Amino acid sequence: MTNEEIHQLAQRLRIDSIRAAAAANSGHPTSSMSAADLMAVLMARHLRYDYDNPENPNNDHLIFSKGHASPLVYAMFAAAGAITDEELLTFRQFGSRLEGHPTPVLPWVDVATGSLGQGMPIATGIALCARDLDRLPYRVFTLCGDSEMAEGSIWEAVEHAGVTGLDNLVAIIDVNRLGQRGETMHGWDLQSYARRAEASGWHAIEIDGHDIAAIDRAFSEAEATAGKPTMIVARTIKGYGATETANIEGKHGQPLKDPDKAIEELGNVGPVHVDVAKPESTGTPHRFETDPSAPLPSYEVGGDKVPTRKAFGEGLAALMQRRGDVVVIDGEVSNSTHTDEAIKKTPERYFEAYIAEQMMIATAIGFQVRGWTPFAATFAAFHARSYDFVRMAVISKAQLCLNGSHAGVSIGEDGPSQMALEDLAEFRALGGSVVLYPSDPNQTVKLVELMADHDGISYLRSTRSGLPTLYGPEEQFKIGGAKVVRESDDDQVTLIGAGVTVHEAIKAADALAADGINARVIDLYSVKPVDVDTLAAASQATGGRFVVAEDHWPEGGIGEAVLTAFADADERPRVVKLGVSHLPGSGKMAELLHDVGIDADAITTAARRLAELGPQIGSAAAAGAR
Amino acid sequence: MTNEEIHQLAQRLRIDSIRAAAAANSGHPTSSMSAADLMAVLMARHLRYDYDNPENPNNDHLIFSKGHASPLVYAMFAAAGAITDEELLTFRQFGSRLEGHPTPVLPWVDVATGSLGQGMPIATGIALCARDLDRLPYRVFTLCGDSEMAEGSIWEAVEHAGVTGLDNLVAIIDVNRLGQRGETMHGWDLQSYARRAEASGWHAIEIDGHDIAAIDRAFSEAEATAGKPTMIVARTIKGYGATETANIEGKHGQPLKDPDKAIEELGNVGPVHVDVAKPESTGTPHRFETDPSAPLPSYEVGGDKVPTRKAFGEGLAALMQRRGDVVVIDGEVSNSTHTDEAIKKTPERYFEAYIAEQMMIATAIGFQVRGWTPFAATFAAFHARSYDFVRMAVISKAQLCLNGSHAGVSIGEDGPSQMALEDLAEFRALGGSVVLYPSDPNQTVKLVELMADHDGISYLRSTRSGLPTLYGPEEQFKIGGAKVVRESDDDQVTLIGAGVTVHEAIKAADALAADGINARVIDLYSVKPVDVDTLAAASQATGGRFVVAEDHWPEGGIGEAVLTAFADADERPRVVKLGVSHLPGSGKMAELLHDVGIDADAITTAARRLAELGPQIGSAAAAGAR
Repeated sequence: MTNEEIHQLAQRLRIDSIRAAAAANSGHPTSSMSAADLMAVLMARHLRYDYDNPENPNNDHLIFSKGHASPLVYAMFAAAGAITDEELLTFRQFGSRLEGHPTPVLPWVDVATGSLGQGMPIATGIALCARDLDRLPYRVFTLCGDSEMAEGSIWEAVEHAGVTGLDNLVAIIDVNRLGQRGETMHGWDLQSYARRAEASGWHAIEIDGHDIAAIDRAFSEAEATAGKPTMIVARTIKGYGATETANIEGKHGQPLKDPDKAIEELGNVGPVHVDVAKPESTGTPHRFETDPSAPLPSYEVGGDKVPTRKAFGEGLAALMQRRGDVVVIDGEVSNSTHTDEAIKKTPERYFEAYIAEQMMIATAIGFQVRGWTPFAATFAAFHARSYDFVRMAVISKAQLCLNGSHAGVSIGEDGPSQMALEDLAEFRALGGSVVLYPSDPNQTVKLVELMADHDGISYLRSTRSGLPTLYGPEEQFKIGGAKVVRESDDDQVTLIGAGVTVHEAIKAADALAADGINARVIDLYSVKPVDVDTLAAASQATGGRFVVAEDHWPEGGIGEAVLTAFADADERPRVVKLGVSHLPGSGKMAELLHDVGIDADAITTAARRLAELGPQIGSAAAAGAR
Repeated sequence: MTNEEIHQLAQRLRIDSIRAAAAANSGHPTSSMSAADLMAVLMARHLRYDYDNPENPNNDHLIFSKGHASPLVYAMFAAAGAITDEELLTFRQFGSRLEGHPTPVLPWVDVATGSLGQGMPIATGIALCARDLDRLPYRVFTLCGDSEMAEGSIWEAVEHAGVTGLDNLVAIIDVNRLGQRGETMHGWDLQSYARRAEASGWHAIEIDGHDIAAIDRAFSEAEATAGKPTMIVARTIKGYGATETANIEGKHGQPLKDPDKAIEELGNVGPVHVDVAKPESTGTPHRFETDPSAPLPSYEVGGDKVPTRKAFGEGLAALMQRRGDVVVIDGEVSNSTHTDEAIKKTPERYFEAYIAEQMMIATAIGFQVRGWTPFAATFAAFHARSYDFVRMAVISKAQLCLNGSHAGVSIGEDGPSQMALEDLAEFRALGGSVVLYPSDPNQTVKLVELMADHDGISYLRSTRSGLPTLYGPEEQFKIGGAKVVRESDDDQVTLIGAGVTVHEAIKAADALAADGINARVIDLYSVKPVDVDTLAAASQATGGRFVVAEDHWPEGGIGEAVLTAFADADERPRVVKLGVSHLPGSGKMAELLHDVGIDADAITTAARRLAELGPQIGSAAAAGAR
């Protein structure tokens, strides 16, 4: 295509953005209009992408980090012939694939964007994947808004891409000066972006983002730049091309008042078809050597106390030997999470995220875009740092295996900043998530294996201190399962825990037995989904008397998972819910478990009271209630 | 003090760090030893702080962003005479104020640190407070580790401080090269930090962090630098001064094996007392003019539909006119959250955080350190970005009033990236938090007032679309309250909602009434704490038949709050818990509420089933259960 043809394409992309937003009566046409020239040049001359085969591993990747410019994405798909004009005009309608912000409901979209500052780090993850995992020559482009450059996550990615020299990565910054409510911090000061990128080892190019030739040269220069990623910092005009919107404040996120006039001003350009170049490479993704016979670690019942975090690391390392698709990213705590076990055996599939948890998750998301199976690990507390990335990963339907170690007051001396008393709530509240919390090393290893096979987001909470091994290496576990670890024919109360509180519940059962009270103990290692059948059987067997103890704030965790299991049941157990009662300080594990009311003493006291109350369900309970 | 005396002080700070960690048998002495010279010079020559009066508004502030260097903080307190040697040796013991990471349990600690990358942004907030709110000449120092410079939040702060020219802020980077598990991304490349700071408008000084004279010059240069913050990038040696630890990997977070030998090598320096200079200024914090008679906005029952987000902004603006201590920070969406109402009336107390939610919360935390009452507002979804800051704010016992707008599928066309289907779980799971979710504009205004008086973390969820006004302007609300908005003498079922689902529940009650089923409707506007009495009365009155509908994933929100209210009660209602059933797309509000199963239809269907089941508590229920 000639420069003039590309200009016409850009005008059509603007027109289609306006038309889509007009049809929806909402959306972000002005944010699309600023970037249309940049994207027109990219698709006409530099992108290599087979729209008929989005699974082609040699396709380039284009991530709209400024996801609100979705009208432009969809206009590009229309120009590429991937969607019809009819579908374009279903934008934002119920049931349409063309959602308000792009999601992978569309086969040409890698990840959901719309939470700013995420697409660019994920693009960095894909670029790293190209070089170090797939080992293919595809390139990664990401379109960023200038407003989102205020997000720290962007600069985590800038630093990572700069340090690792990802020259297959091109970030295009659409500096249209105007955010949602007014001017950005830097207005049209292109230097402010370029300087910072250069300070992190990037090649930066400042251009007029409406000059087709300049844009073309910038993309060529980016491709020719070795050893460094390139940032194209483009001065653009928001709402470019229409007098109603061009560089006018207060026009963010609104359809045009007079779309017809704007379309007229844009030259009334009709549909333009672009034959986007297909990838030249026919390479296949690199595959790592595996050792399918590598043994999973196993631990002796009654042997040394092994922390579940250690079993996690050892289990993962063994799994990575057996499966070449599994990779791990850690937030600079690999000697605590024990993912350093993987460094020893499969160093090429270990990635260091340093203390940049958002980049850690973005990298994992990038890797799974290309079909790898990523684990990402840090202290459970610090997953709070990247929660928005995981929230969005739900919308991306990403496969992520997450581990949070050092959870709960049971960490002891390090104090509350490291404790993660809210992680179960965080991860339970994600649509379709799986939350696991093992109490034993053999169980942990089995759950790690299951996570790698789970298509979605799974989270495993691991514990700092060693705990007794409860299960033999042959014991089987499942997502959605629970284990009854203590029972008799006449149990009067059910004690439920997970992780460290399983061990406290067992101690409590011993204390209760000395009082002549038989207690059933359930290890609720699958916090989501929960094993409703095992819980229901326990409720029936123990007269609906439950004590649930968890090393977590009382809200959103194990206690509420148990309550929800019975919410709409015919018979609902009485549940004494023991969670962390107040802000803990430092101390020894036992001191803190006791102080916050989740140790064996607290469980025993609660269980004794319930036992004295008599059955809480069935006819006997009704007699009591009367 | 002479340079030699300061050197002796630094040695003593190292010795005390080693002693404290040895007594605790845990902690981070090596991370303390690298920064001891930097802190010795600071406290001996540049800090102005009255340890006898930590509330003195003219005190400088020193934030240990690298909170794990707590032994150094505590050694400094000992040297300043604030704590005894005896207390120093209680480090990390249960009940001691000297926790594993510093917390405001100690009166000289402003905020809890220990989640890296937070202290520096909070210090930036305090520096902004000094200049624009307090209008006092105190200065703010923050000690950062080099590892934590990988956190994007640090670079949000660097950008903000640079753009606003906070020359009262000094960040000291302790570049000891070694992180927890090995070398940092940049090792001893001081330039890599300095270059990036300079690119954001900082004055950067590179020094040898063990050269007392050089450190002193750097602090003087920082004080003399006008219009720019200063970053002192100091090359240091981790574990400096002891052969066991100096520049040796694998020594992070461990007490020394041979503390006596190290103390010997450090010259066996005994206790050193430092007379830290008191502030010269005797100024009082600026107070803003107020208009105590400014009316709170009110809305007419049956009038125009007003979104709760608009009432939030209007209520907040009025409150800010009435109370000079209230300030607001917004994440570049003030025209959506409606905090722009405050810009109109009290522009000096409106702060723009741009799209940097971590910096938004850090600014708020910094402001409340100095006694201001901050509101921070963005889309509910994007509070997930700063969740770790709020998690830590719990430990800081901070007062934060948070608003998240555009919550739930009810936003419609923008799609799931903007929906925040997990925010109630996030905020409920914080120790001591308050979670509010109004359904009506008059209610919203009243809740905003209550938030400003609440000492802790409160969160108000607001809604994008206008909803009918249910309450008159005189209606009273309280934290922990609920309203029965529909009842009769023979209600058969209770419908519970908050926000948008209150209105769906009312519609459902109308539909049920047409079937001859009377329904009680509860507006559970205080999601945490919940009004147990109102719920219990409803359970008794309606035979324990509850339908709870919430515009949120089913976990951790309103449904589970209701279940928890009855967990350990004698009689427990049967609860049909309606939450968002699957990942939504774009569409109109009504389409989406219906699609995910939380609209009036879904509530009606569930209620009808419950009504048919008969009473679920009391003797009648037992009869049914048998």
